[in-house]
Amino acid sequence: MRLRFITGNKNKVREAGERLAELGYEVVQDNMKPPEVQADTLEEVALFSAKWVVERSQEPFFLEDAGFFVDYLKGFPGVYSAYVFDTIGYGGILRLMRCKTERSARFEAVIAYWDGREFHTFKGVVKGTVSRNPRGENGFGYDPIFIPEGEERTFAEMSASEKNAISHRGRAIEKMVRWLKKKET
Amino acid sequence: MRLRFITGNKNKVREAGERLAELGYEVVQDNMKPPEVQADTLEEVALFSAKWVVERSQEPFFLEDAGFFVDYLKGFPGVYSAYVFDTIGYGGILRLMRCKTERSARFEAVIAYWDGREFHTFKGVVKGTVSRNPRGENGFGYDPIFIPEGEERTFAEMSASEKNAISHRGRAIEKMVRWLKKKET
Repeated sequence: MRLRFITGNKNKVREAGERLAELGYEVVQDNMKPPEVQADTLEEVALFSAKWVVERSQEPFFLEDAGFFVDYLKGFPGVYSAYVFDTIGYGGILRLMRCKTERSARFEAVIAYWDGREFHTFKGVVKGTVSRNPRGENGFGYDPIFIPEGEERTFAEMSASEKNAISHRGRAIEKMVRWLKKKET
Repeated sequence: MRLRFITGNKNKVREAGERLAELGYEVVQDNMKPPEVQADTLEEVALFSAKWVVERSQEPFFLEDAGFFVDYLKGFPGVYSAYVFDTIGYGGILRLMRCKTERSARFEAVIAYWDGREFHTFKGVVKGTVSRNPRGENGFGYDPIFIPEGEERTFAEMSASEKNAISHRGRAIEKMVRWLKKKET
């Protein structure tokens, strides 16, 4: 079955495609750019975009939204992580966290899936802490300042496959795969 | 003529109402809550919301969106000023600006006005600098850390009428009033 992934990111398509191929899904990239709403949660943002897509095409698809949430900063940068990265960067986060001992943070990803009739959402979370200094060259975004729970390395110090195995995005896809498997049986 | 102002803020309605009454407009508050899109400019955000309103009611209205733009921070917090205020606050802006000498900033407000047939936008800008420390008790939001050009006081150290005379919002309303006057003649 053909399943559109609404995203501008080829790497995400490849990652999800490999996982969903096992279930007989062919994941194809769709470059459609739905608007993203200003909202409190990733679920709201993802569902708003997904509804916009459905108004234009009812063929099954999914899309994903992710964010970095720092507890001491009341969840900032949260749903606006991309914008904040483009302006003050992870350096800005480190400046805001200077000398703070409460450093817990998490990455979240939410997939909104339209099966042709209704929506389903799948959420992946990875908890951890904000590092004191940026470390590592891999990944992107806030990866150099995030140390996942049970690790000493930042996401940017891990290989892509190591990160995908525990990442918020990997976990959201895993939930979606489990749900699709269950649905088939 | 009856003119809806789509906002949750009574003070804004009063301020605009006084100015527009001179032209024979009766400004009434409409609590409708249109979605706000994630976008690069206030114009885009305001027009997206305005289009959403028009899809539901064609009666004339206007709405307004405002933001605080710090040059050294590449325009941050910009269109997400409200969210950033609710999370890291103006204290966060001051922490990000600590020891920086380049402190220029501006407030912008954009009014999107629907006259029953088409959209018009009116933009007001007030330039100034980010203060070293918060000062003053008046106003709201980033007012305690913004010193408008030609002033030594922050917005929060001015009376409401002093601020309205030079503020971004006051200037956007003034542009709208001038345009409406011209249209009548």
